[in-house]
Amino acid sequence: MKTVVELIESKRDGYAHKAGEISSLVAGFVRGEVPDYQLSAWLMAVCIRGLDGRETAELTEAMVLSGRVLDLSGIPGVVVDKHSSGGVGDTTTLVVAPLVASCGVPVAKMSGRGLGFTGGTLDKLESIPGFRVDLDPEAFQAQVARIGVAVIAQSADVVSADKKMYALRDVTGTVPSVPLIVASIMSKKIAGGAGAIVLDVKTGSGAFMKSEDDARTLASELMRVGALLGRRVSAVMTDMDQPLGSAVGNALEVRAAIDVLRGGTDAPDLREVSLALAARMVILGGGASGEAEARRLLAARLADGSALEVFRRWVAAQGGDPRVADDVSLLPLGSERCTVSAPHAGYVRTLDAERIGRAAMALGAGRDRAGAPIDHGAGIELHVRVGAYVEAGAPVATLYSGASGLLAGAAERFASAFVIGSEPPARRPLVREV
Amino acid sequence: MKTVVELIESKRDGYAHKAGEISSLVAGFVRGEVPDYQLSAWLMAVCIRGLDGRETAELTEAMVLSGRVLDLSGIPGVVVDKHSSGGVGDTTTLVVAPLVASCGVPVAKMSGRGLGFTGGTLDKLESIPGFRVDLDPEAFQAQVARIGVAVIAQSADVVSADKKMYALRDVTGTVPSVPLIVASIMSKKIAGGAGAIVLDVKTGSGAFMKSEDDARTLASELMRVGALLGRRVSAVMTDMDQPLGSAVGNALEVRAAIDVLRGGTDAPDLREVSLALAARMVILGGGASGEAEARRLLAARLADGSALEVFRRWVAAQGGDPRVADDVSLLPLGSERCTVSAPHAGYVRTLDAERIGRAAMALGAGRDRAGAPIDHGAGIELHVRVGAYVEAGAPVATLYSGASGLLAGAAERFASAFVIGSEPPARRPLVREV
Repeated sequence: MKTVVELIESKRDGYAHKAGEISSLVAGFVRGEVPDYQLSAWLMAVCIRGLDGRETAELTEAMVLSGRVLDLSGIPGVVVDKHSSGGVGDTTTLVVAPLVASCGVPVAKMSGRGLGFTGGTLDKLESIPGFRVDLDPEAFQAQVARIGVAVIAQSADVVSADKKMYALRDVTGTVPSVPLIVASIMSKKIAGGAGAIVLDVKTGSGAFMKSEDDARTLASELMRVGALLGRRVSAVMTDMDQPLGSAVGNALEVRAAIDVLRGGTDAPDLREVSLALAARMVILGGGASGEAEARRLLAARLADGSALEVFRRWVAAQGGDPRVADDVSLLPLGSERCTVSAPHAGYVRTLDAERIGRAAMALGAGRDRAGAPIDHGAGIELHVRVGAYVEAGAPVATLYSGASGLLAGAAERFASAFVIGSEPPARRPLVREV
Repeated sequence: MKTVVELIESKRDGYAHKAGEISSLVAGFVRGEVPDYQLSAWLMAVCIRGLDGRETAELTEAMVLSGRVLDLSGIPGVVVDKHSSGGVGDTTTLVVAPLVASCGVPVAKMSGRGLGFTGGTLDKLESIPGFRVDLDPEAFQAQVARIGVAVIAQSADVVSADKKMYALRDVTGTVPSVPLIVASIMSKKIAGGAGAIVLDVKTGSGAFMKSEDDARTLASELMRVGALLGRRVSAVMTDMDQPLGSAVGNALEVRAAIDVLRGGTDAPDLREVSLALAARMVILGGGASGEAEARRLLAARLADGSALEVFRRWVAAQGGDPRVADDVSLLPLGSERCTVSAPHAGYVRTLDAERIGRAAMALGAGRDRAGAPIDHGAGIELHVRVGAYVEAGAPVATLYSGASGLLAGAAERFASAFVIGSEPPARRPLVREV
């Protein structure tokens, strides 16, 4: 068996690790036997030299085994999970979880808190009065078995290695490595007990992966490692140049999701991406044999109200007020408001997702450090999409906050996020690749 | 100013650091503000991406400034230092220091302890009864001014960063990086106060740099960085496939050095390399204008006994018994001995320096961990050189130790270090390049 220094040297020199080597390194790190300074040297070597598919799969498995692993095998059918690589105004989980469950495919998801300008699913759910996300694994499992859907906070004892390793990566310049990102994502999904996973890989200004090439690499590596570990995995690459929905902010995004579940058309982009993801989930979960059949099933469940009914049951099961499904005024909304108007007439050429996300943070809708409080009623409602023609003075967005002092700064940030020009921009497909 | 993480990211992505960035990183590390896990990530990025000459010079200077810097400017003339990249049976310092001083060029050297199979100059000197190497910098300076030569142990407050950084490199797989090696060597030489430095870069099985290409790269980088920092630097590349002298071990090597200083010819290779190094030192120190003049001067000082006389004064100045210069039986010699003989007749094709060094360690002549005691009288006397013809049963070497129990194991190790074949080996030049 190689020593830790020999393992580091081997990766430094560009060699692939032999089977068992990465597992022993990760296990040693979790037990505290491999100190931070050795792991960070190895992580840097991995950042520069890479890991092949087999190595990434072993790293993923080692991370899974570093903590508690949920067993959802008692639930009939293939339990499906969904992961998004993060975006602005992306509330697809709130749409697809009840929608897919209404098609008879169980959905079980453990989620993290939002940090930075991309919102967190848990924060959105908690803007529903009474909603609780801190269920223990037994209650989680029982709820999926009973009503077909549950979304909870990832418990601390799941994938222990990931938390410890991410904290180190964050301070040693070793975050942007595709194999390390893949292992972090896939280990959490696998430890969560899902049999099939649909991945929504975002690309564009508001995404972690700014370029389409990088996003494609990430998507294909996620699928490769998923396959090596015996999971059914589909990846969908979607646009995050402008926010996905017309709403950015926690309660505002819940409203948008409810509108889609009701069959509304106020948020066509959110609806389109949600249906693309839901179709993959239904197919992987065995609820339909192909895209056309899945699409017909989804449309039927939206039209007959059963998707919205599963949403009501889901909210109630986790302690929330199910009446929000029928009366969105029960959701909080910032009492301080202002409107940003078009300075001149023209076509909306840009609605920069990252800048709009940062403006929403400035209103109180996000957090810049772990554990900071959030204003669930704060956020931005967009009145236009990229490509629309606006007259001078027409409203572009309404900003909401619980604190009047935050409006001016956020409005200024927002003003730098959109560009109006004389020509319409080229249209780019929302769902780039499946 | 970039944050530490941004500095690491920049080197990870292969960019050169801007002026001042490396200094601030090293200063932060020495003050304990940059933790080990961040520096090790940076060191790994440097191992893989490299540092250019300007960056290496800045690293060297930052390391110099991390501790005490000796000022030898009060000593008339150019004070010369000499560094060897480590070898087996390499006792050139004991020859060149008094020899160069006898030519009127002051020699001041701070040295480290030996570790592993390459002996340390301090350990060799301490095998002379009474010799002290722990002089403080003031006494060091005064001795150089008075008798023209001093060799002492590097004090702990010189180049503080190097000790701390090397300890981290040793456990994070970041030792074999040319710019890091260059900065470590040059910072110690510069902090030692020398105005001119001659570098003996070894290549071959007993050297740190096994290949000639690697040794040439190291030599040229050492010279480049020395020039950038305003020091006169010469490098000599010498062979370390077989031990340099016929003696391996502390007191045995002192005997060999004294033989050369007396004008003896028992150790022709040691004499040849010593003269090549001494000539460079005399030239850099301004004692001769060219190679031929330097060689004539050196030959005269050996012939008229003045080199040996400076050796006597040097030993006496540092508390040692100067009579060893005339009576080497005053030096310790292991009372337990055995002879290794040639198993069959033929030409000596190989005398593997590293294996012979390890056999000497097994006799008690070296240490495998810092601070371990040493048997000054232990070692190996070689009776043949590579290329010699030996009869079956002829003595190849005599092994000496203070403990009889160590002889058998060491003899077994030694037996694997030499090869006798039917054809003579190709001759390789001892001094490869100047």
